[in-house]
Amino acid sequence: MGGDPQVGSARPGGRTARTRAAVLDAVRDELADAGYAGLTLERVAERSGVHLATLYRRWRTVEGLVTDLLGEIGKSEVPIPDTGSLRSDLRALALEIARLYQQPRMRAVIEGVVAAAVRSPEASAAWASVIAERNRLAARIVARAVERGELPAETDGVAVVSAVGAPIYYRMLVARGPVDDALAETAAAAAYAGALGGAFAHT
Amino acid sequence: MGGDPQVGSARPGGRTARTRAAVLDAVRDELADAGYAGLTLERVAERSGVHLATLYRRWRTVEGLVTDLLGEIGKSEVPIPDTGSLRSDLRALALEIARLYQQPRMRAVIEGVVAAAVRSPEASAAWASVIAERNRLAARIVARAVERGELPAETDGVAVVSAVGAPIYYRMLVARGPVDDALAETAAAAAYAGALGGAFAHT
Repeated sequence: MGGDPQVGSARPGGRTARTRAAVLDAVRDELADAGYAGLTLERVAERSGVHLATLYRRWRTVEGLVTDLLGEIGKSEVPIPDTGSLRSDLRALALEIARLYQQPRMRAVIEGVVAAAVRSPEASAAWASVIAERNRLAARIVARAVERGELPAETDGVAVVSAVGAPIYYRMLVARGPVDDALAETAAAAAYAGALGGAFAHT
Repeated sequence: MGGDPQVGSARPGGRTARTRAAVLDAVRDELADAGYAGLTLERVAERSGVHLATLYRRWRTVEGLVTDLLGEIGKSEVPIPDTGSLRSDLRALALEIARLYQQPRMRAVIEGVVAAAVRSPEASAAWASVIAERNRLAARIVARAVERGELPAETDGVAVVSAVGAPIYYRMLVARGPVDDALAETAAAAAYAGALGGAFAHT
């Protein structure tokens, strides 16, 4: 239990967890600085201070690193709003997503992840699974709205929350413009109108 | 005027145009077969039968090739529906986009383009301009609906047609699932409900 918690720990897995955190931080920084095209195990080793041999042993490839980072992103970001009404929950969700990607570092990370998913089936599956899990959690917004009687029971919650996120990813990856709060407000308003209008009924 | 139109032409630019067509076809095929990561000027030269020196002189880089291909894609694809009602125009537009990307070759091309846009500011600008021009044209759907009195005049046409495409690109690039007709129907229905509900009013 003695010793500096920054450099050692008696807790099993403590050193491993810190190594992983250092490596994944370095992957984020490299993606933000140089993008996916510039990401190499050598650069991550240098930036993180973790031995290259350790990186090869635990992550094997750049895609392995991105896949692991995706697992972290999936666990940690975008809490699910619960404000008491569907309209304001969707608005809060849209603004959370937009504000995440208003950070240049997070936008660079996500662009790197998308490029990795195009190039690697492993990264593609990891990314798809992060998004599916996040949408499954966010769909609670719709389940609560159904319980309150705001929406018909057959509403597809994942389709509704996907509709909130889709215009934000479209702006980043397709239109390649800024992710501003006005875009988030429009996305939330349109998803809300679509949900009330029955556009997202299970078919 | 004599000679085989397949191999020569007295028309100025004829040979140049055919060379460009052969090269861009080869770029599409390479993207479909090997993706953006495998795209090289050497492979495009081999596949197209055009000299490598010509490729270097006219296109310089892989990003130059993708940028030129984007110009072609922007000119040629997705006609604008004009069926007489906003609801059916949006539905037709969504189904056109979905059916384009139901072709594995077109989906591979677009994934390559998105990865190129992440890696190259030149490709990013070309892609953004293709999408902006396509959305500007598609926004005629909304302008006609305003003329018919279906929508208020302050409706942002580009926002409406972006909302039709966004869920399709989200499915391909983010959720990484199949682009089916049901997705297109949902996207069109939600964009229509959003437009009627005033979600896309200019702010």
